[in-house]
Amino acid sequence: MKRIVLTFLTTLGFLPVLGQQVSAQADPLPSWNDGAAKRSITEFVSRVTKQGRPEFVPAMERIAVFDNDGTLWVEQPMYVQGLFVFDRVRALAPRHPEWKDTQPFKAVLENDTKALAASGPKGIAELVMATHAGMTTEEFGLIVKDWLVTARHPKFGKPYTDLVYQPMLELLAFLRANGFKTYIVSGGGIEFVRTFSGNRYGIPPEQVIGSSNLTRFEVRDGKPVLVREPEIDFINDHDGKPVGINKFIGRRPIAAFGNSDGDFQMLQWVTSGAGPQFGLLVHHDDAVREYAYDRSSPVGRLDRALDEAPKRGWTVVSMKKDWKTVFPGYSREQEKQP
Amino acid sequence: MKRIVLTFLTTLGFLPVLGQQVSAQADPLPSWNDGAAKRSITEFVSRVTKQGRPEFVPAMERIAVFDNDGTLWVEQPMYVQGLFVFDRVRALAPRHPEWKDTQPFKAVLENDTKALAASGPKGIAELVMATHAGMTTEEFGLIVKDWLVTARHPKFGKPYTDLVYQPMLELLAFLRANGFKTYIVSGGGIEFVRTFSGNRYGIPPEQVIGSSNLTRFEVRDGKPVLVREPEIDFINDHDGKPVGINKFIGRRPIAAFGNSDGDFQMLQWVTSGAGPQFGLLVHHDDAVREYAYDRSSPVGRLDRALDEAPKRGWTVVSMKKDWKTVFPGYSREQEKQP
Repeated sequence: MKRIVLTFLTTLGFLPVLGQQVSAQADPLPSWNDGAAKRSITEFVSRVTKQGRPEFVPAMERIAVFDNDGTLWVEQPMYVQGLFVFDRVRALAPRHPEWKDTQPFKAVLENDTKALAASGPKGIAELVMATHAGMTTEEFGLIVKDWLVTARHPKFGKPYTDLVYQPMLELLAFLRANGFKTYIVSGGGIEFVRTFSGNRYGIPPEQVIGSSNLTRFEVRDGKPVLVREPEIDFINDHDGKPVGINKFIGRRPIAAFGNSDGDFQMLQWVTSGAGPQFGLLVHHDDAVREYAYDRSSPVGRLDRALDEAPKRGWTVVSMKKDWKTVFPGYSREQEKQP
Repeated sequence: MKRIVLTFLTTLGFLPVLGQQVSAQADPLPSWNDGAAKRSITEFVSRVTKQGRPEFVPAMERIAVFDNDGTLWVEQPMYVQGLFVFDRVRALAPRHPEWKDTQPFKAVLENDTKALAASGPKGIAELVMATHAGMTTEEFGLIVKDWLVTARHPKFGKPYTDLVYQPMLELLAFLRANGFKTYIVSGGGIEFVRTFSGNRYGIPPEQVIGSSNLTRFEVRDGKPVLVREPEIDFINDHDGKPVGINKFIGRRPIAAFGNSDGDFQMLQWVTSGAGPQFGLLVHHDDAVREYAYDRSSPVGRLDRALDEAPKRGWTVVSMKKDWKTVFPGYSREQEKQP
């Protein structure tokens, strides 16, 4: 009965208004199992939002930053944007007959993972630039949106935007209901993530920070456009994350959420703030419902951050134990038998 | 009496709270004379905020961008940040005895404007880097804040933060009361402007876009800091303004406000949007109350943008005719006799 009433209120759009009232009674994080991880989140939010308490933080300073790959959505067997690159190389191949005989393009077209690995970071950079530059920012956004509609995850057979983590969606909503401004701070491309951050996470483009290409202002047929150049502007990963946050936000967030060593410096910087602060790592230890990986994974390697989490007071979330549900719209039983 | 009450409320910080209530009844732009410029603003806001109208724009897409120097505060006889550079060279000179014999520092210490001009852009860059790099971002913020408290404008004898334009403060508040998100898009330094944008304009640091130095993440005595490097990261002027807006905001604003040819591309890009859009230039034609300059001014040159404003449908504000008051807390009569 209670569920029916809630559904009714949501449909009518009344829930946001009632949000704070409801959260006092109902569980704002229903996909989280009770335990230390969930408790650390609700206790932190409670500490910084109670006016008059010594650790109260004014709403405008309640900034929370989230990594994307592996923290908000699936990043195995490869970063989603990497799969986009390969699909784009295949799609563009008819316009580039020379790719059939040129590495690293040949490797992609022939699914030759050995040759691809041999091409190294330089090869990857070539693939990225061939697929991410030469068009306007608006054209690029449309290409990504089109791809996200049709592409399917190799293991789950679903669109990538379905493979976001339900517990993290609830966490984003819970923080926002408590006056937080939520940001994505991704090693991925800023204009790639912006195409779905609004619909999927409720995060507007101006609250997405990411890696970027240089862009150039140009007037084409009397219309001003921004053209994506085949040159790196900024790498928003590792040391780059605190740099990017400072550049875009101009102040230190009070909460940071990540899942890999690429998020180490972001969590380190955020949790060195003078006031109250919070750091959290998602640990992928659920081979049944998602993937199990950490120290030796080529994608989303979690090693140093995992070791230092206890002494730094960071919460480590076990996907297996702390999450009732991984993806939206699926119960635990359904997820076990996909 | 009304003025005294208003001043009292401003001092106590109550005015922002009262803003919306007042605007429903009273004139939201009291320092603007009635005329085409004022009407173009109120008509635009009315067009995009009335639900059901064909030109309605949802609140989250109501983004307005403002140049800072010459648009929100005084920029003559020199950009405020330029005056900061000279004061910092003088303050740091005891630690740099070699500057007495080294250009362009010697020129600054001896007030030798000819030698300074002769040092050209390369000389200016040297001065900027010597005063804007080598410290942490937090240290730099404190230096700027300290300087803003003590520095005085050579003509008006007041702190620079008093020399903001009252009509533009009203315009910012009016737009925000109508659901707009207001951004600064400055050719000046992003971390310089952020030190006063909150208090002075009600614009938080994450809504300031500007030119920047590279910063480097570093752990000093166990504490992570961001160090300002003596290297340009981004020049947010001319072509750079639409590039910076796209990078930070990720979508095209619907209104842009500037005062010089450095704002041309920003206005051009914003007013080429598909939906309703608005462009405005402040024309400094008031030698009595402020300054009169445009086509031949080395600072804030307004030439091409002034020529093209009519055909592009941009509003040109005459400071002399359209503004009742220039600076906060002064009536027209007082401003005439400083």
